[in-house]
Amino acid sequence: MSSTAEGQVLAITGGVGGAKLALGLSKLLTPDQISFAVNTGDDFDHLGLHISPDIDTLTYTLAALSNTELGWGRADETWQFIETLGQLGGENWFRLGDKDMALHIHRRALLDAGQNLSEVTATITAALGIKHQVLPMTNDSVRTIVHTQTGDALPFQHYFVRDQCAPAVARFEFSGIETAAPNPLILQQLETCRALIICPSNPFVSVDPLLSLPGMRAAIAESGVPVIAVSPIVSGIAIKGPAAKMMSELGVPNTAVSVAEHYDDLLTGFVLDEQDAALAADINLPTLCTQSVMRTLDDRVQLAQSVLDFITELS
Amino acid sequence: MSSTAEGQVLAITGGVGGAKLALGLSKLLTPDQISFAVNTGDDFDHLGLHISPDIDTLTYTLAALSNTELGWGRADETWQFIETLGQLGGENWFRLGDKDMALHIHRRALLDAGQNLSEVTATITAALGIKHQVLPMTNDSVRTIVHTQTGDALPFQHYFVRDQCAPAVARFEFSGIETAAPNPLILQQLETCRALIICPSNPFVSVDPLLSLPGMRAAIAESGVPVIAVSPIVSGIAIKGPAAKMMSELGVPNTAVSVAEHYDDLLTGFVLDEQDAALAADINLPTLCTQSVMRTLDDRVQLAQSVLDFITELS
Repeated sequence: MSSTAEGQVLAITGGVGGAKLALGLSKLLTPDQISFAVNTGDDFDHLGLHISPDIDTLTYTLAALSNTELGWGRADETWQFIETLGQLGGENWFRLGDKDMALHIHRRALLDAGQNLSEVTATITAALGIKHQVLPMTNDSVRTIVHTQTGDALPFQHYFVRDQCAPAVARFEFSGIETAAPNPLILQQLETCRALIICPSNPFVSVDPLLSLPGMRAAIAESGVPVIAVSPIVSGIAIKGPAAKMMSELGVPNTAVSVAEHYDDLLTGFVLDEQDAALAADINLPTLCTQSVMRTLDDRVQLAQSVLDFITELS
Repeated sequence: MSSTAEGQVLAITGGVGGAKLALGLSKLLTPDQISFAVNTGDDFDHLGLHISPDIDTLTYTLAALSNTELGWGRADETWQFIETLGQLGGENWFRLGDKDMALHIHRRALLDAGQNLSEVTATITAALGIKHQVLPMTNDSVRTIVHTQTGDALPFQHYFVRDQCAPAVARFEFSGIETAAPNPLILQQLETCRALIICPSNPFVSVDPLLSLPGMRAAIAESGVPVIAVSPIVSGIAIKGPAAKMMSELGVPNTAVSVAEHYDDLLTGFVLDEQDAALAADINLPTLCTQSVMRTLDDRVQLAQSVLDFITELS
């Protein structure tokens, strides 16, 4: 069974969709068998805090603390802080819950005490009982800037949360990427892992920042391991988030085929939903068509198992 | 009636007792007639925040938002943030409420945006509907350090909140005081005011930091106005806080007389509680003996009126 095969699997993940598959993988593979490399391009400095939305989404998901009603943030949340901040005239468009604030303040304190983001993340995930490694893609500052078709340059969270993805995108910039070093723990895993999974995250803003880090694509190529991406687009729709809208605005067909083409020669195999089975013929790679919409925990585990079996098949 | 006399009154205040009299004064005098100069010696940098306990105590008191049950913090408070921070392993001995956090985060954001502490305080008090000026004693960093009899040097909040005033004090240090500039708005008021009131605050840690600012005592002396202090010690007991305990540890009788002597030649008159009327003979100043324990809002206003009448008498 693939879930007990020798060696580590490394999974690249960004937002909510990626975290769902990551959770499924974490149920099948031990902390010695899988680690997660997480996008930090949508991190931002806000109200004196360092906010890492993708790290936090994965952290809360793995700790069974994610707010499934809202689709973001922490479960059983209260909102006294942000309501009061609004009354004081402070910036309240980024809805920070009272419990969620504890994580952000703790991160601030740990960073101020000299820990890097990777160490901070290890401290926080350990405190929440998470045994799997959650690895920020870099300890340096990389900030995704959304250049819009009207010429604005929006920090990612301003585009994503404040403006609710309304502006039409023209291109993305990963500010700071040229001088950012990939997390050494990720490079180390790439040297020894048996496979790389690109979770069903937004290719442009959740996965590309990591792939754009200096030396990252070369390190993946050198590893020689199977690289499997799971499409976040099903039937032309992004299961969550603005990926499909972005593709339309960028003039790319909003299909799983475009996702496969986007990752170009990086991939060994591609996973798309059974609803899109007809598209497999247009993808110049081994494909797996499977039920990829993850509504329940069983769905997550099932997709994880399918992906791991696919890896075995390709290895 | 004194409350309508010409010119400004300036009141120096620190913690809870001072804020009570300040509230009474604010009910009798308009924002054109009284301002408040506030201790910042017990400010501290904590969890990436700039916390100003004495400014906040006065702010919440004037805004009718103070937590009268706890005796500190904000009314109708909830504690999700600090509970969660504790679960994450963060420092949770300084109990920051969810609503209170909004003020601290807003201050952090305004300071980061380039406002000085005085401007930040004006922004926050205005947002809470406070019309009277709340003036931090300085915009520079002054930090009260408690030197204990066992040789420790504790930042004030560690002594006051974390260690609950248990260590015996030997002396106080106001770190940064030599290079701190008094708030120019306070110096300006001293040039034109008609009287200075030292509220019933802790002489050592709430009032001395302000009086120790370079040029402050000289500016008070040059103003030539009546300077009236109200004793925070009644019947040998501090109404609130560690003043009496400190006096014992410093080898000073814990009486109103010691408070009057502590302020030395600064004073024109001294207000002590009617319970301590017998001590008036030992004070080498005009005195007013009155009911000074402020349980109700009426008590606060009554004491304020008595102090203002006493000023008129001495002017």
